[in-house]
Amino acid sequence: MFNANNSSYPTIQADLVIEARWIATVASQQPLLENHAVIVQAGNIVEILPIAQARQKYSATSLVCLDEHVLIPGLINLHTHAPMSLMRGIADDVALMPWLHQHIWPAEQAVVSETYVQDATLLACAEMLSGGITCFNDMYFYPQATAVAVNQAGMRANLGLLVLEFPSAYANDADDYLQKGFAAHDSWRNNPLISTSIAPHAPYTVSNKTFESIITYAEQLSLSIHTHLHETLDEISQSEAQYGLRPIQRLAEFGLLGPNLVAAHCVHLLPHEIDLLAEYGCHVAHCPNSNLKLASGIAPLTQLLAKGVNVGLGTDGVASNNRLDIFAEMRLSALLAKGVSGDATVVPAHQALAMATINAAKALGLEHKIGSIEVGKLADLAAVKLSDIATAPYYDPISHLVYACGREHVTHTWVAGELRYSNGVYANIEPNELKEIINTWQPKLKQHKH
Amino acid sequence: MFNANNSSYPTIQADLVIEARWIATVASQQPLLENHAVIVQAGNIVEILPIAQARQKYSATSLVCLDEHVLIPGLINLHTHAPMSLMRGIADDVALMPWLHQHIWPAEQAVVSETYVQDATLLACAEMLSGGITCFNDMYFYPQATAVAVNQAGMRANLGLLVLEFPSAYANDADDYLQKGFAAHDSWRNNPLISTSIAPHAPYTVSNKTFESIITYAEQLSLSIHTHLHETLDEISQSEAQYGLRPIQRLAEFGLLGPNLVAAHCVHLLPHEIDLLAEYGCHVAHCPNSNLKLASGIAPLTQLLAKGVNVGLGTDGVASNNRLDIFAEMRLSALLAKGVSGDATVVPAHQALAMATINAAKALGLEHKIGSIEVGKLADLAAVKLSDIATAPYYDPISHLVYACGREHVTHTWVAGELRYSNGVYANIEPNELKEIINTWQPKLKQHKH
Repeated sequence: MFNANNSSYPTIQADLVIEARWIATVASQQPLLENHAVIVQAGNIVEILPIAQARQKYSATSLVCLDEHVLIPGLINLHTHAPMSLMRGIADDVALMPWLHQHIWPAEQAVVSETYVQDATLLACAEMLSGGITCFNDMYFYPQATAVAVNQAGMRANLGLLVLEFPSAYANDADDYLQKGFAAHDSWRNNPLISTSIAPHAPYTVSNKTFESIITYAEQLSLSIHTHLHETLDEISQSEAQYGLRPIQRLAEFGLLGPNLVAAHCVHLLPHEIDLLAEYGCHVAHCPNSNLKLASGIAPLTQLLAKGVNVGLGTDGVASNNRLDIFAEMRLSALLAKGVSGDATVVPAHQALAMATINAAKALGLEHKIGSIEVGKLADLAAVKLSDIATAPYYDPISHLVYACGREHVTHTWVAGELRYSNGVYANIEPNELKEIINTWQPKLKQHKH
Repeated sequence: MFNANNSSYPTIQADLVIEARWIATVASQQPLLENHAVIVQAGNIVEILPIAQARQKYSATSLVCLDEHVLIPGLINLHTHAPMSLMRGIADDVALMPWLHQHIWPAEQAVVSETYVQDATLLACAEMLSGGITCFNDMYFYPQATAVAVNQAGMRANLGLLVLEFPSAYANDADDYLQKGFAAHDSWRNNPLISTSIAPHAPYTVSNKTFESIITYAEQLSLSIHTHLHETLDEISQSEAQYGLRPIQRLAEFGLLGPNLVAAHCVHLLPHEIDLLAEYGCHVAHCPNSNLKLASGIAPLTQLLAKGVNVGLGTDGVASNNRLDIFAEMRLSALLAKGVSGDATVVPAHQALAMATINAAKALGLEHKIGSIEVGKLADLAAVKLSDIATAPYYDPISHLVYACGREHVTHTWVAGELRYSNGVYANIEPNELKEIINTWQPKLKQHKH
């Protein structure tokens, strides 16, 4: 117990006081505060005030002084497949179709089980927490196993109930995927850290009939929907051949477009399709590193933002990235938009940071809880140190976050006011546990590296 | 003194023995070695052999065991302006012309002096050494001051004798720049770490007459030439208006194109201009992060490589990047080429690594000394740790270097067999020295941040 107050006035006991050199609030009012403190009670931000005033008013059960840091909202990874973490680098410099057919799917067929998913997710959570990510939007087999690892790590996640037509070790057909998904959803129903989407994999792996029942279930259960959409040109031409429609038009006809849809990628869009996404209030998970690595293309980010589409950032699975690193996505999304548009002023730093935080929170329907540092929201936070040689000097902390910093400058990560990661140490994950996970699965997966 | 040999046979005393789990030699034969040792005598690599044999044959004055690392050739930054390090983040999200006219040039006019250049270069050297960079190709005012800092840091550099038509605190006119450059060249003439280029800034800042005398001097003094070329579309249209020629054609007519030319950027090239660069054996310094950030565009890397142009990687100055990070350039050059070409197999990891090492060494005419880990070359080396959570598991160390690792995984950097950086500590640079440099210049430069 630490009392920072020297006066004789009674003070309020706060669970956690974080004093920071800068706070990048990502709030529309006062986006950057200097020498302010964030007061946390029971996981919630109850006040933000100048440090000197905070020391008069509060006693801190736990006090953290970040005198060379910028405090930011916890980053949100809006599209990933966390359990692919153990496939990092298993198939690089390979085109999408052989990548899927010859590498990823055979590897998945060989190893993916409930145990695999739990183990691999724990590794992914460790990587994400160390890079300031507090929440991720996932889609994979065995989501109940993902939930177990998420819960151990103490992260926040929106877990997708994966739906595919083809059988896997996890489920036999679309209906089986759905039923198993709902059972998984029941398993975490009372967990405050976990929310749920239905996750039809993609237009090319899910039938019309299945999409129709997904829409019904999503309405009945008030669940959002998370899918891949317009990731590649192949996907579009295949849909035109099979259905006579581009995928987005096909989904529109079912009534799938709406404010509860998170569409990952959206690389190839015609102008009227951008309008469609804007009109329906759909959310896009922009994944620039993965889109480049798999040679899918470059999404029209500037146009999406200009039309008012809400865009967040995702890493995609680690097998196509190969980092679960939202700092890398912020930087690349800002740089790529400039290079492609020929306009250096588009996607400025504060917009990249908003995509990685509040925009993604909106996409998950969690903007009342997370995504910015404001009174009444949960204390999902990360501290980024700016005193490194590689970040000196500094003239604008928000610009530095995007262009100079990397995830290696993250020193602390909190989820709902609980310190989950600090300077190489995890609250709930032992280094030996991760080592054992790697030693168990790496040799099994190595057989599929060729 | 450490003797790793237990037998009674006499052993050879080696200055330095580095035992590594992997060695990415970047040599055409055996690009990846496992469990080998590099033997260094007087700064030179004298033998590379399996660890067990090395322990029999050599005693080590200094022994370094890298059991979780990949040893790589020191990275080479083929285009930078090291003394801009103190302008990191001074003007982000700004278009090129206002960036230059309203931010960078006024800031330079206000602060650039011999002392500034020495101080800023030392910071840049610290940043580069910590990211595995052992050599850089520079162009800036007061190159003799750059040399002093380079020498203190113990790095290798090719320093450009900057030539411009317009006056600065450094020189009055093109002839004055040249004469001051030659005096600087004399100042480091016997320094084994420093070599020299003549560096006409760009076609749009250097007159025909000056280019002609540069060619004469370069021939007489056997110096290479380093310039910016075809960085922006504006540069090209301005040249067409002024000279009736595109810049590359104008330089070709002077006889400037040749194997001693390093041309930075080359973003906008017509097919026959790529052929021209290939025919003349010119070298290109590809700077993808800077080209995106300033919205210059995306260089046709795949086409350049397909035509056999030798391409290395550069960060450009930190004010347009904002990192002196060749890992970031490797990753982005590989990813961007895939995304733009629609072919995920182009610029595979080993090619990105070659651009950052042996290709850049060729561009500097130093390929007989540096750029790969081979017997007879200098021991310019870096160690990259692969056991981090963010790099686990691993299936292909070379692929991991490019797609999963960052410069934060560099643990050791040697230049000519001397350990210049290790785990946060510099051999010849004190943390307080850097802190004082930052504290001196940041407030002066901050006045120009608006």
